[in-house]
Parts: sequence; C-alpha cells; structure tokens
Amino acid sequence: MINKLVSKIKKLNAPVVVGLDPMLGYVPEHIQKKAFEEYGETLKGAAEAIWQFNKGIIDATYDLIPAVKPQIAMYEQFGVEGVEAFKKTVDYAKSKDLVVIGDIKRGDIGSTSAAYAVGHVGSVKVGNTELVPFDEDFVTVNPYLGSDGVTPFIDVCRENKKGIFVLVKTSNPSSGEFQDRLIDERPLYELVGEQVAKWGELHMGEEYSYVGAVVGATYPKMGEILRKLMPKTYILVPGYGAQGGKAKDLAPYFNEDGLGAIVNSSRGIIAAYKQEQYAQYGEENYADASRAAVEFMIKDITENIL
Amino acid sequence: MINKLVSKIKKLNAPVVVGLDPMLGYVPEHIQKKAFEEYGETLKGAAEAIWQFNKGIIDATYDLIPAVKPQIAMYEQFGVEGVEAFKKTVDYAKSKDLVVIGDIKRGDIGSTSAAYAVGHVGSVKVGNTELVPFDEDFVTVNPYLGSDGVTPFIDVCRENKKGIFVLVKTSNPSSGEFQDRLIDERPLYELVGEQVAKWGELHMGEEYSYVGAVVGATYPKMGEILRKLMPKTYILVPGYGAQGGKAKDLAPYFNEDGLGAIVNSSRGIIAAYKQEQYAQYGEENYADASRAAVEFMIKDITENIL
Repeated sequence: MINKLVSKIKKLNAPVVVGLDPMLGYVPEHIQKKAFEEYGETLKGAAEAIWQFNKGIIDATYDLIPAVKPQIAMYEQFGVEGVEAFKKTVDYAKSKDLVVIGDIKRGDIGSTSAAYAVGHVGSVKVGNTELVPFDEDFVTVNPYLGSDGVTPFIDVCRENKKGIFVLVKTSNPSSGEFQDRLIDERPLYELVGEQVAKWGELHMGEEYSYVGAVVGATYPKMGEILRKLMPKTYILVPGYGAQGGKAKDLAPYFNEDGLGAIVNSSRGIIAAYKQEQYAQYGEENYADASRAAVEFMIKDITENIL
Repeated sequence: MINKLVSKIKKLNAPVVVGLDPMLGYVPEHIQKKAFEEYGETLKGAAEAIWQFNKGIIDATYDLIPAVKPQIAMYEQFGVEGVEAFKKTVDYAKSKDLVVIGDIKRGDIGSTSAAYAVGHVGSVKVGNTELVPFDEDFVTVNPYLGSDGVTPFIDVCRENKKGIFVLVKTSNPSSGEFQDRLIDERPLYELVGEQVAKWGELHMGEEYSYVGAVVGATYPKMGEILRKLMPKTYILVPGYGAQGGKAKDLAPYFNEDGLGAIVNSSRGIIAAYKQEQYAQYGEENYADASRAAVEFMIKDITENIL
C-alpha cells in the first residue's frame, strides 16, 4: 500500500491528502435539512449528514488526490451511527481508488494493539470465517506505550500489505510539553523518530517503509531533523492551512527525490466554501469549492517544494 | 462520578474493576453457537456473542463490584457491529448501577480531543437537539500530545461530572522504552504524573480528583513514587493477575485511607472458567466462575493492602 501511495503521488504530482473531518458546522444547510427530514435530529440524522457531505467532497476531488484521511473522532462524536458513517466513508473512498489513512491514533498494550490492528487494517476470524472489519489502508498509531504497543500493528500490516503512521512530533501548540523534553540532550521526538526508522525496517516497501511518521507542519525545523533521521520513512504532515503551517515551510519534510512526505489539509479543504477566497461557489456548491481548494493546495505545495 | 466511584468502593470494600475485554476465544461454545445460528459467522454474530457473554458476567458480578472497564479495542475488532456491542455493554452496566470506565486511550490535538470527549463522556448538538452518544462515566486518555490534547476532555467532564484516567506508566513490558527515559534526571512518567496532578486541580471531587492516572501493577516501585506525587489522584491499576501483577505489590498504590486506587483484572475474571482453579464450574457456568474469581480477587487485594 505504501507503493501504491507513492505511485499515486508521483502520477498525480500531488503529495497531499484531504482530511475528512466533518464537524456538523461544516455541513451545508441543505444536506443537514435533508438528513434530518429523513432521520430526525438524531445520531443517525447527523451520521447521514456527514456521510453525504463526505461523498460530495470525494466525488469532487478523487481524481486530483492520492488519499483521504478520515479522523475517526469526528465520527465517534456521533456514537455508533457516526462510526457507521466512518465505515461508509472508508468504503466509498476505496471504491474511488483512493488510499485511505484512518486517523485513529490508537496504541495500547500488545494484545490490545493487536485487536485494534485486526479491526482496522486486518481481518478477524469469526467461527471458520475470516472477516474484514474497517479495512483502512493505513492507520495512525500513538507510540507512548513503546515497541510492544506498536509492533502488533506492523505484524498485521505485513500480512495485509498495509501500513501505519506513528506520531512523532504532533502539530498542536502544546506538543512540546512532553515530546520536546531532552533525554541525553536530545528531544524525545528524535528518539521516537529513530525508533520509527527501526520499526520501518520490519516492513519495507520498494522505496519507502510501510511504517511512516506524523510530523506537524507547524514545526519545520524539527521536520528537517526528523527527515534526515528517517530517510526511508514517509512523513504524514498535518497542520498545513487552518492550523498555521505554510507551504514555504514544507520543503524540509521532503527528500531530494521530491517524495517522502504527504501533506494533510482538513478544514481548509472540506470547509473551503466558508472562506472568502471560495465564497463565490456558495454553500450549495461546497464540493466545487473543495475542489478549487485542492487545486490551490497542490499548486501551493508543489511550487514551494521544488 | 469520582465521588460515586469512591463511595461504591467504600461500601463494597472492593477496590476492583472488571475488565470486559471479550476475545471470541473466551466466549463459551454455547453462546457462540446460538449467536452464529441467529446471525451467521458474521461481525454481527461475533458482536452478539460478546454482548451475551458480557451480559452474563455483569449479571453474575454487579453486586460485588463498583465498576467495569470495557476495552473498546476488543469491540472495534468486530467493526461497527462490535462498537454497537460496546455501547450495549456500557448501557447495560449502567442500568446495573455500575460505574463504567471506557478504556479507549484516546488523545489528539485540541479540537479532535474535544470531539472524542463529546462522543464518549459528553453530549453533541444535532440541529436543536442535545444527544448523548456513548455515555461512559470515565475514559482513559493518552498524554503524548500534552495539555491541549487532554484539557478538552477535562472541560467536557467538568460539565457532565465525569472523569478521565490519564496514562502515566503502563503495565506492558516495553512501557519503559519512552516512559522511563530520564529528563533532568527524572523519568518521563514522573513528569507526566506531576502534570496529571496539576490537571486534577481543574476538576476536583470531594476527596479525589475527577482526573485519575493509569499506573501498571507490574511496576510497584514506580507506583509508590507516583502515589506520593499525585496524592489526590485515583490510580487505575491494570496488570494484576494474567499480566503478572501480584496483590502483595499493590499496597504502594493506595493511600493511608485505604483509598486512591482501583485494580483491574480482565482475563483473570472473564475467562476464569478456563483456569484450573475454577474449572469445576464448567464452560456452561462461566459467569459463576467469574463471580468466584471476583470474590477471590477482592479478598486477595483487601487482605494485602490493609
């Protein structure tokens, strides 16, 4: 799956991923109205609204982008019905040949991480039948529990040609509280980064490993160091756009081959119609606004990293 | 909810929580058979089997214990249907007046943590209707992203009199890989513990904070230090029993008032019927075996901590 991701990025010349993080506040009035008419102001109504919203964005952008990244929290906030909308979104994106990165940030003790892995990127045996539950292509993983919380994901991924992105340096303002603390004069995120590179050797693709890293766009100097520490690691870069990360700061996240990083934007794409820049599309045509925002993002990034 | 938890622990003299982590391999044949007859060897069949299994254990133990802790990974492994079984389990346990600790180990950037918090321990607005999605009483939270990944949980908990347990020192073998690394000559878990104590001041109950900590039973010396660093923090202690933690090692996790910690056992209780000690119950009476194992656990722990 890392080979497919890399090949799609090359073909489209688009090292970008669209974050499908649907807050109800982003969903245009007409979609909410229809969903609530059908299912009432219920969790099912909300789930239907975000699913229809996502479908519109996927339909309008799938030919431009290699991948989408649904953030499962935005679905879990609507309970079981929301999780069902997550699954529908994963399936629909895959039917459009998009690579799906489930942003689930799971991580637990060994046997528990194995259960998450089976559920999200593997298969589970029920009686004599092998079933595939959520079926994302990649998931994000939290490293706080150490190797035995991470390697069960890698083991399941190896069997299924799937991959993970491990949190190394996150994009949020207080990420430094623990991640930047110095251990033997080096910040924790560097030790995690080195470990990610080691884990990566356990499951290599052609040019890059199936084990990637998450490094926020908001910390480009750290991105530069981590890029060098993890040469075969694909870096998933959140924080571009709405969170403040600028295209000109993204060059250090890429290798000299122009590869090695994929930049995420969520709000900036899916709620583009709310920005002045795309207001002319109007709420009804929110998906066209998202397409325009994707086109701008690809141009912005590829111009700045070359 | 921390007040309710403490008061139930006192009343029952039982500082224990039963981990409802149903692997299909633990579910007796007759329950699996019935579920598969009804729904086939499908995710729905598996979900029905684990839900019926849980129901039996809750029915057989709810009068002895203050709380249960379903580990959501064990449900996510069966996809959307599994998550539905998680929700049923939460609701049923609450109907028996049990405190429910959702072991979800979530944690993300601020707006995303807020969505998890709303989904699991808060309410979400859909149109003009306020809805309560998963409705656990407590959830576990991963601290790797720092304060702005944790405080959104605390904010939602404050509104709803609910609480969290933050991972400090986990019970797994490689937890030390990052958690034990020295920062200014002190291990990372101590810094996280100090931060948990500070976060705890944001949401205090009567005697203890609504912000608890997770410290594994497998590291009693660290438990002793953390106990002193976080005097008002309830400690959720996994790792007793199947993971190797012994009752005699648990005393340091408690305060002198005999409170301050709640010890989890999962496999040791829910799959008790598979142990030689409880084999006489037989598979059909698995829930009675679980009850006997709970009685043993309570005695084992209370005798050793007094």
